[in-house]
Amino acid sequence: MSFDRLQEKIDELQNPTVAGLDPALGHIPPQILERHIEEHGETLWAAAAAVFEFNVVLINALSDIVPAVKLQSAYYETLGAEGIVTLGMTCKYAKSQGMYVIIDGKRNDIGSTVEAYSAAYLGAVKIGETEIRPFDVDALTVNAYLGSDGIKPFIDSAEKYDKAIFALVKTSNPSSGELQDKFIADDDIRARTARTGGPRAWETELSEARTGETRIGGRVYTAVGDLMEEISLRTIGKYGFTRVGAVVGATYPEEATYLRDRLRNTFFLVPGYGAQGGSAAEAARAFDKNGRGAIVNSSRAIIAAWKKTGGDYAVAAREEALRMRDELRREIYDS
Amino acid sequence: MSFDRLQEKIDELQNPTVAGLDPALGHIPPQILERHIEEHGETLWAAAAAVFEFNVVLINALSDIVPAVKLQSAYYETLGAEGIVTLGMTCKYAKSQGMYVIIDGKRNDIGSTVEAYSAAYLGAVKIGETEIRPFDVDALTVNAYLGSDGIKPFIDSAEKYDKAIFALVKTSNPSSGELQDKFIADDDIRARTARTGGPRAWETELSEARTGETRIGGRVYTAVGDLMEEISLRTIGKYGFTRVGAVVGATYPEEATYLRDRLRNTFFLVPGYGAQGGSAAEAARAFDKNGRGAIVNSSRAIIAAWKKTGGDYAVAAREEALRMRDELRREIYDS
Repeated sequence: MSFDRLQEKIDELQNPTVAGLDPALGHIPPQILERHIEEHGETLWAAAAAVFEFNVVLINALSDIVPAVKLQSAYYETLGAEGIVTLGMTCKYAKSQGMYVIIDGKRNDIGSTVEAYSAAYLGAVKIGETEIRPFDVDALTVNAYLGSDGIKPFIDSAEKYDKAIFALVKTSNPSSGELQDKFIADDDIRARTARTGGPRAWETELSEARTGETRIGGRVYTAVGDLMEEISLRTIGKYGFTRVGAVVGATYPEEATYLRDRLRNTFFLVPGYGAQGGSAAEAARAFDKNGRGAIVNSSRAIIAAWKKTGGDYAVAAREEALRMRDELRREIYDS
Repeated sequence: MSFDRLQEKIDELQNPTVAGLDPALGHIPPQILERHIEEHGETLWAAAAAVFEFNVVLINALSDIVPAVKLQSAYYETLGAEGIVTLGMTCKYAKSQGMYVIIDGKRNDIGSTVEAYSAAYLGAVKIGETEIRPFDVDALTVNAYLGSDGIKPFIDSAEKYDKAIFALVKTSNPSSGELQDKFIADDDIRARTARTGGPRAWETELSEARTGETRIGGRVYTAVGDLMEEISLRTIGKYGFTRVGAVVGATYPEEATYLRDRLRNTFFLVPGYGAQGGSAAEAARAFDKNGRGAIVNSSRAIIAAWKKTGGDYAVAAREEALRMRDELRREIYDS
């Protein structure tokens, strides 16, 4: 099963890191882009080719120590169809090097349209009698604002093609609380909190919420997390996780602790470590007591490490990935 | 201003319709795809070429009576990079025929990544000294689950390049209420409801919410709508609408009525009419007392009308678009 494979790769390398290939042009050493501009002019092709070269070199530098890559779709879409060529080629190359590949597209829509997204990223389209898998990655990030019928077609594809998704639950950005932290006056949440949510009564949570004492429990993000786990329970793999993971930011460690305890069958993808301010100790809150069930993302700090060190970008990326690995190991496996 | 142009085009044609170019392969007459397969084999290129031909003929059949097209990104992404070529070419062709062009991508992410999405769809990327506009459409749909710092870069691009966005508020699908209808125990919502929300007290709304008597007011979708209007007020155009529109489904007419009254500076994009079950009278709830401030989408009923009539697909699409226009005119302009 998809998350079983990911967990085993993490265990094998003793490294719960996903490297974010988010190639904003400013993160690429300028001589690479210049060389491609000489060949293709100042075009989207030149930029897309530079991004592909950059990605291939990074994958070669990382694939024996980092189990997974996450490609942020926006940085490929911003180069038009040429960027999507690079997105597809990079996914295929990373897979060929044994990496678990996640596209971070945060896709969302209603049922029939979600089937088209599923076919694109996780499944296949049929042209005449030929089945073609446009991207065929291991996992896709999704946004659950439209409710379960916007998620179920992704789960169906995930089951059919042995893939997974990660739904946004509590995101790492400063304004994530504006909607995600709204306290819900809802009997479903109350009942589940009473059943699974630990020692505090729902009324206590409501009263603390009204006075701003806490952002934990009974929130919109709680409801999203509950819903995602509920609709995917039939897909649990051998390590106890369903095919629907959750995005839970390292920048909100209290929430991560609460969600880890509440969503015991959910694998977490953890952004916000490093450049966004989350520490290794904070990221470690997303892991279960066996040190499993989560993977921590780092993008800019790895791929643009050359800007700090001044040297070769592949060497700098590998050094930063090793530093991060060792830091996470100390927090997660040694404690 | 972007929505001023859209409103004026709607007024000129007396037709508040946007035609959804959502070309699932099953909606395209089979002989078109077969012809392209003869030339390109059973490949993504064959499918992408068939979609482009289909779109061009539809745009020619509709552009003098329908003011806008909406391209559902999923049906292009599902054909890989080849599909994105068709997406870009269709957007440019529709613009050349004077139509207002919306990409329905429901994009969402954190700040720096949203800048990349904005550059792709609304703005420009710089390659060397050359500025390139990859898609350059009039508007993009977005998802606000990440809060205001995931939306503000879109607003900045919209101001700089005279564009607009539509944020998902209350979507048309059956499960949209699972998260969007959760009642919020929040003093901000309460205060704004007291100020602008009509005759009912927040406590009445809470008590009705707990007993399931109503789905109106004080909900997650209310909070999203409020937030989107608040952060975009500086961008109001001459018809009173900001650059941040809202997606409000025709399938939830009570909610649409409530939101129309609450969000007076917000232009609505209304899915759910026709195939999804919303009537013209229900869609009409999204319009203000002057018959302005909204546009109603129809996708399958227009582009796959040939399946019902059996005749030429362009003629069938035009006939359905005229029928829909006349039905909306009776509900919105004549009443």
